[in-house]
Formats: sequence, structure tokens, C-alpha cells
Amino acid sequence: MAVKLDVLLPCKNTVLKGGLLADRAAVVREKMIPYQWKALNDLLPDGEPSHAIENLRIAAGEKTGEFKGMVFQDSDVAKWLEAVAYSLATHPDPQLEATADEVIDLVARAQQPDGYLNSYYTIVDPENRWTNLAENHELYCAGHFIEAAVAYYEATGKDKLLQVVCKLVEHIDSIFGPEEGKKKGYPGHEEIELALIRLYRVTRDERHLRLAQFFVEERGKQPNYFEEEARARGPQRSPNWGLFGLDYNQAHLQVREQTTVEGHAVRAMYLFSAVADLAQETGDPQLLQVSKTLWDNMVSRRMYITGGIGSQAHGEGFTIDYDLPSSRAYAETCAAIGLFFWGHRLLQLEPDNRYADEMERALYNGILSGMSWEGDRFFYVNPLEVDPAVCRARHDHRHVKATRQGWFACACCPPNLARLLTSLHHYIYSCGPQGLFVHFFADSAVEFPAAGKKVGLRQTTDYPWDGRVQLDLDLEGEAPFSLHVRLPGWCRQVEVKVNGEVLSDLAGHTHRGYLVLTRTWRAGDRVELDLAMPVEKVYAHPKVREAAGRIALQRGPVIYCLEEVDNGPDLHSLLLAREPRFQVAREPELGVPAISAQGFRLEAAGSQLYTTEKPRRTAVTIKAIPYFAWDNRRPGAMLVWMRAEGEG
Amino acid sequence: MAVKLDVLLPCKNTVLKGGLLADRAAVVREKMIPYQWKALNDLLPDGEPSHAIENLRIAAGEKTGEFKGMVFQDSDVAKWLEAVAYSLATHPDPQLEATADEVIDLVARAQQPDGYLNSYYTIVDPENRWTNLAENHELYCAGHFIEAAVAYYEATGKDKLLQVVCKLVEHIDSIFGPEEGKKKGYPGHEEIELALIRLYRVTRDERHLRLAQFFVEERGKQPNYFEEEARARGPQRSPNWGLFGLDYNQAHLQVREQTTVEGHAVRAMYLFSAVADLAQETGDPQLLQVSKTLWDNMVSRRMYITGGIGSQAHGEGFTIDYDLPSSRAYAETCAAIGLFFWGHRLLQLEPDNRYADEMERALYNGILSGMSWEGDRFFYVNPLEVDPAVCRARHDHRHVKATRQGWFACACCPPNLARLLTSLHHYIYSCGPQGLFVHFFADSAVEFPAAGKKVGLRQTTDYPWDGRVQLDLDLEGEAPFSLHVRLPGWCRQVEVKVNGEVLSDLAGHTHRGYLVLTRTWRAGDRVELDLAMPVEKVYAHPKVREAAGRIALQRGPVIYCLEEVDNGPDLHSLLLAREPRFQVAREPELGVPAISAQGFRLEAAGSQLYTTEKPRRTAVTIKAIPYFAWDNRRPGAMLVWMRAEGEG
Repeated sequence: MAVKLDVLLPCKNTVLKGGLLADRAAVVREKMIPYQWKALNDLLPDGEPSHAIENLRIAAGEKTGEFKGMVFQDSDVAKWLEAVAYSLATHPDPQLEATADEVIDLVARAQQPDGYLNSYYTIVDPENRWTNLAENHELYCAGHFIEAAVAYYEATGKDKLLQVVCKLVEHIDSIFGPEEGKKKGYPGHEEIELALIRLYRVTRDERHLRLAQFFVEERGKQPNYFEEEARARGPQRSPNWGLFGLDYNQAHLQVREQTTVEGHAVRAMYLFSAVADLAQETGDPQLLQVSKTLWDNMVSRRMYITGGIGSQAHGEGFTIDYDLPSSRAYAETCAAIGLFFWGHRLLQLEPDNRYADEMERALYNGILSGMSWEGDRFFYVNPLEVDPAVCRARHDHRHVKATRQGWFACACCPPNLARLLTSLHHYIYSCGPQGLFVHFFADSAVEFPAAGKKVGLRQTTDYPWDGRVQLDLDLEGEAPFSLHVRLPGWCRQVEVKVNGEVLSDLAGHTHRGYLVLTRTWRAGDRVELDLAMPVEKVYAHPKVREAAGRIALQRGPVIYCLEEVDNGPDLHSLLLAREPRFQVAREPELGVPAISAQGFRLEAAGSQLYTTEKPRRTAVTIKAIPYFAWDNRRPGAMLVWMRAEGEG
Repeated sequence: MAVKLDVLLPCKNTVLKGGLLADRAAVVREKMIPYQWKALNDLLPDGEPSHAIENLRIAAGEKTGEFKGMVFQDSDVAKWLEAVAYSLATHPDPQLEATADEVIDLVARAQQPDGYLNSYYTIVDPENRWTNLAENHELYCAGHFIEAAVAYYEATGKDKLLQVVCKLVEHIDSIFGPEEGKKKGYPGHEEIELALIRLYRVTRDERHLRLAQFFVEERGKQPNYFEEEARARGPQRSPNWGLFGLDYNQAHLQVREQTTVEGHAVRAMYLFSAVADLAQETGDPQLLQVSKTLWDNMVSRRMYITGGIGSQAHGEGFTIDYDLPSSRAYAETCAAIGLFFWGHRLLQLEPDNRYADEMERALYNGILSGMSWEGDRFFYVNPLEVDPAVCRARHDHRHVKATRQGWFACACCPPNLARLLTSLHHYIYSCGPQGLFVHFFADSAVEFPAAGKKVGLRQTTDYPWDGRVQLDLDLEGEAPFSLHVRLPGWCRQVEVKVNGEVLSDLAGHTHRGYLVLTRTWRAGDRVELDLAMPVEKVYAHPKVREAAGRIALQRGPVIYCLEEVDNGPDLHSLLLAREPRFQVAREPELGVPAISAQGFRLEAAGSQLYTTEKPRRTAVTIKAIPYFAWDNRRPGAMLVWMRAEGEG
């Protein structure tokens, strides 16, 4: 039973003007994209080699040599191209565009006559295409090429890559589908599903939508495709099969039967993003409900306070409710980005601050933490607690790097950061029949249609460091529409002024966590928000074992942490005072607000490991900095969940 | 520079009369030894198969078949024989002795004509004896056969096994040693060193002592023997070599250069026990100092409050100072037993409660926890915190069993428990030229020589549940000697009476944590101790991250824990009240004292995972039971380090 959903559309004609997000986007454009280009071409002095461009040259028959890297090495190129597309859209750069065009030409040459495109199989194992969907990422890589093609087409109008991927999809459609004789498989790593829907929105070719639908709906059916496929390959060609359960691939149940987020966190995010997309395109209320149920399970039981997801390295995924260890977190950068993608889709289907709040949590914490201030060092894993000596000594921390790395053998995260941060402006506003939605606060400008007019909105703010937001409208004449402005869940005291007058009945103007101002607007109309942004002590649910008796500091949407460089070693020995006076001041080296407060350092009464004597307390000043900005000065320990007097 | 150490000797003619230790020893005799005999013969309905007796039959040429089990499977038989020997010494049992004699005959038949004895190499790889000392445990198994032979000889006077091992040692001595042409190797898993010294004490054959010395002193020399050996075998025959560092085998430095306990905890304990033995036999002060330095490092930085050691599963060993995670502890039962062995040796060299206190800590906590109340279920790993759901879900907890097991593929711990608990009476008292030392409190009787007389001492107590201890002397006439009675470090208030009169100057009568009463003793003399045994809140050193802000409950030497069966799930949500009134009462199902106190259960203010609202508190009664007795009722969660109001 399909119902028409009253869907919003993101406003892509948005310009970031300044502030933290614009600054991060600039770093990506100016430093990260060129840096990653070097990485893809093995021109970096350190870090793991990529070989990704070289693989494509070999697949195109222009070079000889061996395939190197992960089976999904192509996807690093695709994600880089997607980031370049967003960058070119806002900041034209003929030289960069020429480079991208060359890469696209190379990709086209690496495509096989039948449309197949994958450098690993083309070079290494051409006879065995599509025989190991569970592990070998052919459909995943196709998905990333599709996303890149759509983005590049939208940014530049050039359709060469779009033609390549359409031919590729035609080939895939000839292999997979409900029709007799076609394989009933689906990707081990989801991605092509959401990419196909994105393609469909450009091509309006129903086959693209139907193929996405097939991949989503086929997943988890019995007998299980991956098990059958592994049996068909035989044990020799399935050495790693069975290391994880089917939940690793979200293939333990059909999607419509799933009620908890399971398995590999990035895969889950991409699948559930596609489920939300399908709900939008088909109006299927069950798919929307499935997506919402899964979202609620994740955000209420399986997500770190940073928006990081994935509680263990084994399977890079979810474990059980409330199992969120700080120092052994996986919290992959890509997974937090995936959460952001998924939340964005739900937000368009059902504007509600419960989606935007968690997207914002991920963005300002577990996503931005993935890159260094300079944009050339990356975290794959984003722990909430690090002690470098523990990371070195303990085997169960071997996935945790105590400092960001130059590049990775599995380099999915850096280009994922690049493509998100170059397209952040797409996420700030949405338009619907009712008017404009302001989901996020960032110094920016947008144009949108309302009542047949083109309306300009200028948002002025220093968010997330300051809670004051000013919205100025510009239009010819007047236009009746609603302005929906998100009231962030983290904020406990909001003052709203419309044209200088305080809005007294805020509750009466609030719907699903959005301020709704419906009126006839004129040029010069101004809405001001003052979001009180005190330092807050935040508690985790008491079932979260590793946060029990501890607090985290949060200011606005930003989670703070303690670093050794500010507080000395042994961060667990620090205790925040009972009623601390928090002071917020600019951290000189980082240029972001730091929090200071009174506290104590506990010191052993003697040298005994166990004693009935309480540890001694020495008064100290505790200093916290934004979590995402840690590891930008000197390496050392870091801690989010800290001890606090009286919190027991 | 050898100096004569004023060494104590354990009083073996001790009888345990009653109380917890006698009860545990009885369970071993009556249930565990027969149960383990079934295990060794694969007659158990559940648990991992052993095949250990069958291996010996095959090695003896009396059966055909394959070797099964670990390369050190023989040692399970040897340790069982050793336990049987101790059992026969105190509780003659002709049927059990006949069975043991048959096993010894079998071992003798499995011995090769040249003296070699090891069923794995004899069956599987006779050409490659002594080519993989690092990993393959030939010398380790020899060590356990030697210990069994000495114990059996001392218990029964029968020397068949002693002859077998003397022939084996002769063979080993022909292979290893400082002489030209002999291998310069030493065991990957230490054990033979301490066994050879034990053998030497019976045989007084200097070669036995010199071989032990050689193995201890050769370890860690450069170039490293294990590395050379692996190189000689080649990569094909060294598939697992390099998984661990040389510190895993305590071979990273020569023993005399070592200052921190490193690597596999059981191996370290056996090596350092041998180092202390060598210090005793040779009077080498440097060896004593090395042993003491290592002991101090361990007990002040690398030991759980239960006496468990080994902070991670990888390498089953030590990590770094203060790294003592509760739920991912290794804390192998064998390692705590090894700590007890080592401490005992230091205690004889230098009577001081700092050794006996930690031995007692291990015994009443991390050792006794290794067996079920009924003696037929075992923990290999003894965590300080268990949540069964976490153990199932988390790969980094896969070594942690949430409930005791029937048997193990690697079954070192159950027979180690058996041999320790059947010989516990050896550890209670020591004699020296100065007189008697009472190291431990247990309802027992001992006879010892003093001033040319035979003196009897009867110790009456319900320790560890009650701190009152009564010592009654019996002798003909009178004898001047010193009675040394340990004053446990856990005890903060002691009252001593001699013949009913309170000893006022306790400090003046205390030396290295022992009460020293020097006088002319007569029959009927009575010494009474009243060791105050309130429930204590114990703190860990603030650098122990996972105990930060938490307390453990201790009463006497016994560490307590919370179990789900008493307190419900989510033990981290419990908070002990600020000034709790502790009540101690017999736990009806377990028959041991339980502690009750006021506390709170924290409950989330709402369903949000993260919130500025403090969790709500509901008053509850918290109940704790002795740690060693957990998992004897219904399976569930367990926690040692609990939260406590005001301890932040």
C-alpha cells in the first residue's frame, strides 16, 4: 500500500560562507583532495601504498603489472571523483577538472566491452566475476562509480562517467534480478542500492529503481544466497567464509523483518539509507517504519555519544544493546558518515529534530574527528579513550591507533570524509511545499522557491561555538510560507525573536522539534535564535557499563574530551569537582573554545596496589577541548567519559 | 659470592583438621581426582576429550592410533599423579594407589630405551625431538613427570617413577648443557628447572642441580636460542613462530637482568620459582634480589586484587603496569597457583608477611575460584567481571567463559588445582633454627622439632570466616624456641593473648609482619589471636583504569563480588551507599558468609542514551558473596569492582 510521502528536497543551491564547516570544507578542497590524489598515485612519502590508479591502468590494458590493494581499491578513486565533483560545483578549478576528466577517461577505458567494470576481477580473476558477492565488493565498487558519475554530471554537466555507469548497470541488470536465469544475489557490502536510486533520480529509468529494490528485498531470503554461493565456490575458494555470521552482512533476516541494527556498521548504514530512499520513491509505509525502528534501536542503544557506531573491531560492527566500550570502540569514520547519510534521508521523509540531532552529533564529533586539523592525517577508528601505552601493549586494542595516520591499506575513510565535507552545504536546508527547513546552523546563504517567488535567506552565526543565529530574508515583495527552524535537542533554553520581538509562545510554534513560523514574509524580515550553550554534564544510560559513574562534557553539539597535553597522564585519575565553575576560552594552539573547570587529581596514598586508604586528592584545573580536535598537538592519552565528584 | 641463607623448611607433617581448606582438599580427594581420572580416560559425558592416557598407550606400543590433544598432554597425567601422591600421603587408598601404580607402569613402558619420554614426539615426530623447545613443551612435560615422581616417592616410598625420571634426566643431561657439543637450549615453558631442584633435594645428585642452573642461566642469552632454533627448522616447520615476542618466554633478557614480570604468566611464575630455589641452593644473593625485585613489580603493579595475574588473552600474560581490565582479565588459575608457589619459596628464604599475604590473596580468591563447589567444573580464566551477553557478543571476550566448564582442550588448570589443594597442608607452617612459623591460619595440627624435642601445635580456628585463632602447644617438659605467627597485612586491629594475658607491646614483638614470641614453652601454653575482620572497602591504585572510582569489598583475606542471582542484572547500575552498615550472614545455598549493605540502583531518567538528567536512584540492598564462590548457583553477571557513593 503505497502512500505519497510529503517529502522534502535538500536545497543544493546553498553557499557556506564561513565558520567551522566552511573551514573544514576549505581544508578538504585545498589540502585533502590534492593529498588524496597523491595517495591514489602512490606519491605520498609515508602511509600505506594505494596502487588504485595503477590498477585501473592495468585493467585498461595500458600497463602491465599486478593488481595491488583491497578488492575494493577502485572505490577509493570513485569516492575521490565524487568529492572532486562537489568541490568543482562550488569552487571551479579547471586544472582539477582536467585531472578528473583524465581519471574518468581511464575508468572508461578500464570498462570491459560488455559493460563490466572492476579492476580486481579484470586483472586477477576474470573467469570468476560475480561468484563471491559476499566478500568481494564488485557491486559496492559499482555503487561508488555510480555516485561519482551522478555527482560529476550534476556538477559539470559532463556525462561521460554517467554513460559508463549506465552501461555498467545495464550489464549488472542482465546478471541479477527476479527474472528466471538471473542470479538472485545482492552485495555483501551494500552501497549500490542507494547509488541506483540516486541514478534513477537523474535518469528516471525505472530499471534503475527496480534493480535497487531487488537488491534490498532479496537480502536475507532463505536459502541464503551467500551460503549457497560459498558452497558453489567450494572450501578452497572460500577460505574466510564463516568467520562472521550472516548478520555481518545484514543478511540474517529480510530487511522488513529486521528490528535491531546488526553487523558491519558501514554496510548497515548504506543499506538502511537505501531502505529510506526506497520508502521515499515507492511510498511504502512499511519500509519507512522499518527504517525508523532500526534508527531508534541504534540511537537509543548502540551509538557512542560522538555519533560513532560499531562497538568492536571483529566484524567492525554492532554488538548488543548498551555495549559501548570507550577504548575498544570501532566507531569507524565511514560509519558515522553513513549514519549522517541515513539520518538525512529520514529527515526528508519526516522532518523531526530526532534525526537532525543525531546527524549533528555525528558531524561535529565522530565524523570531524576522522581528520586532522590540516586534513592530511586520518582516524579510521575513533575511540573515546586512548592511552598510547595500552594501544601498544594490548592485543584487543590493536585496531586503535593512538594518533592519526597518513594513509591506510584499507583507505575507505579519507575519501568518504572528502565527499561528505565538500557537499555539506547540501544538508543544511530543505524545501517542501510548506516552505523552508533550516536543519543545521552554519554561516551560509540559500535560495529557495516559495509561493512562486525566489527567496534568499542569509544565515549568520558562529555556530557551533556560539548559539546565536540570525536569519535574514530577501525577496521581492512578499510571500506566504513557513520557515521551519530546528530547535536542537541538546539545547534547554531558546529565545526566538521575529523582527526584534521575542516569541512568547515557543511551544505553540514548535512541531517535532522544529520552530514553525508561518506568515507572509518580506525582504528584511529577520528571525533571531539565541540557543543557550552552557557547558553541560551529560550522563549515559546506566546500562552503558563503561560510562557508569562518569560524565561527558558537552557544549552545544560539541562533545569535549581531556587530552594528556593539557592535563598530564593518567586521565582516569582526574575527578571533576562537584559544582564546577566552567570557563570557556579559546585554546591558543587549536583556535577552538576549550573548557576549564576545577577538579582533583587522585594520587595513591602509598605504593600499594590495593589498600583501604582512600587516594589523596590534589586540586587541579581540568581542561577539556572539543573531541574532534584531539590529537592535533602532541600525541598522548585522551578521555571522553570522565570521573566527577558526586556522580559515583 | 654465595652466602648461606637462613632458610626455612616447610613442615610436611601437618594435618588439616577442618574448615574451608580441609573441605576443599576433601572435595579434591573425593570428587576431583576420580573426576579427572575419568577425564584423562575420556569417560566424561561432556567437556573436551583428553586422550592423555591413550597417548601413553600408543607411545608404549600397546595400541595403535593417533596422538591427540596438546603437545603437552602428558603433563595432565603427571599432575594428576602428583595430586594422587599427596592424597595418598594423608589419606591412604589402596585402590587409588593401585591405579596410580598402573599409570606409572604405563609411563615406564612409554619411556624409550634411551630414556626419552614424551608421547607426542614418540608417536608423531620421533626424528625431530628437541628441535622446537620454544613451542613444544618436551622439557615442560619432563618437569611435571619429575615433580610427580618425587611426590609419589615421598608419599609411598615407591621409586619406580623416580627411576624413570632419573633416566629421563640423564638423557636430557646428555643433550643439554654448557659442554661442547651439547645444545644450549632451555624450555619454552619453564617447569623443569624447579622440578630438577626438587629432584636434587631427594637425589642429592649435583648434576640435577647443575642442569637446573644451566636452564635458568642460559635463558635470554644472545644470539637467542629460540630464534636460532626457528631458523634451523625453517619457516615451514615454524608456522606460529613470531606470534609473540621473546618476552612471552621470559627470553628477552637473561634472568639476572630482568626487573619486570613479562610474558606468559604461568611460565614466568615457574621460572621465578626456580630462581628462588636456586638462590636457596646456591646462596647467590643476586638471584634472591632478582626474584624479590620481580615479585615487587608483580604485586605492586601487575596483579589483580584476587591474586590473578595475566592481563590479556594474547600471550596469556602480563602487559604493562596498572593495566588490569576486569572483564578481559586472563588471570589463569594456573598462574595464581604459580604465584603461590613462587611466594612460598621467597617466604622460606625471607619470612615476611609481604609474601604470605599475596599467597593468601591468591589462594582464597583467584585459585579457589578455579573450581566449582562440587569440584567438577573449572575456570581456566578468572575474570573480575562477567556479563554473559557480553562474553557471547564480544570477540575480545572470547577467552572468558561466563560459567565453569567440565574440561578443556588445554586442561592444565584442573590438575594443577588438584595437586595444590591436596598439598595445602605443606604450606601452613615452616620450621627454622629459630622455631616454628605459622604462615597461614587453618584448623590444623603440626609436629616440629625444637630444642631437641618434638613439639605439637594444634591450631583451632574457623578462618577465613572468623579471625579468632587459638594455638595450643604440647610437648614433654619445656623447650625454648620462638613462635612466629603471621600478622596478615589485611588486618588493621589484632589482639594477642599468651596464656590468657593480652600482649601489650605488639609492635615490639613484630618482625617483618610476624608476631615473634620467644620463650620457654610448656605443654598447655596457649596463644590466642583475634584478627579483627570487619568488611573493608578497598581501593585500587588510581592508575588502575578499570577500578578508578570503584571499590571492592574484602573481609579478612576474602574478596567479595556481586552476582546477578542476588542483585539482578546490570551490576554496574548498583551504587553502594556512602556509609553502609555492612551485615554479614550465612548465605543459605553456599554456606559461606555473605555481606549485605544499603545501596542504590540507578535507573535512566528516560529512554535516551545520553541526557543531562541524572539517573534516578532507588534504594536497594546490595548483597556480596566471596568471589571464589561465584557461579555456584545460577549463571549470570558478576562484578568485583563496584561503584560506591562518594568514591567518584
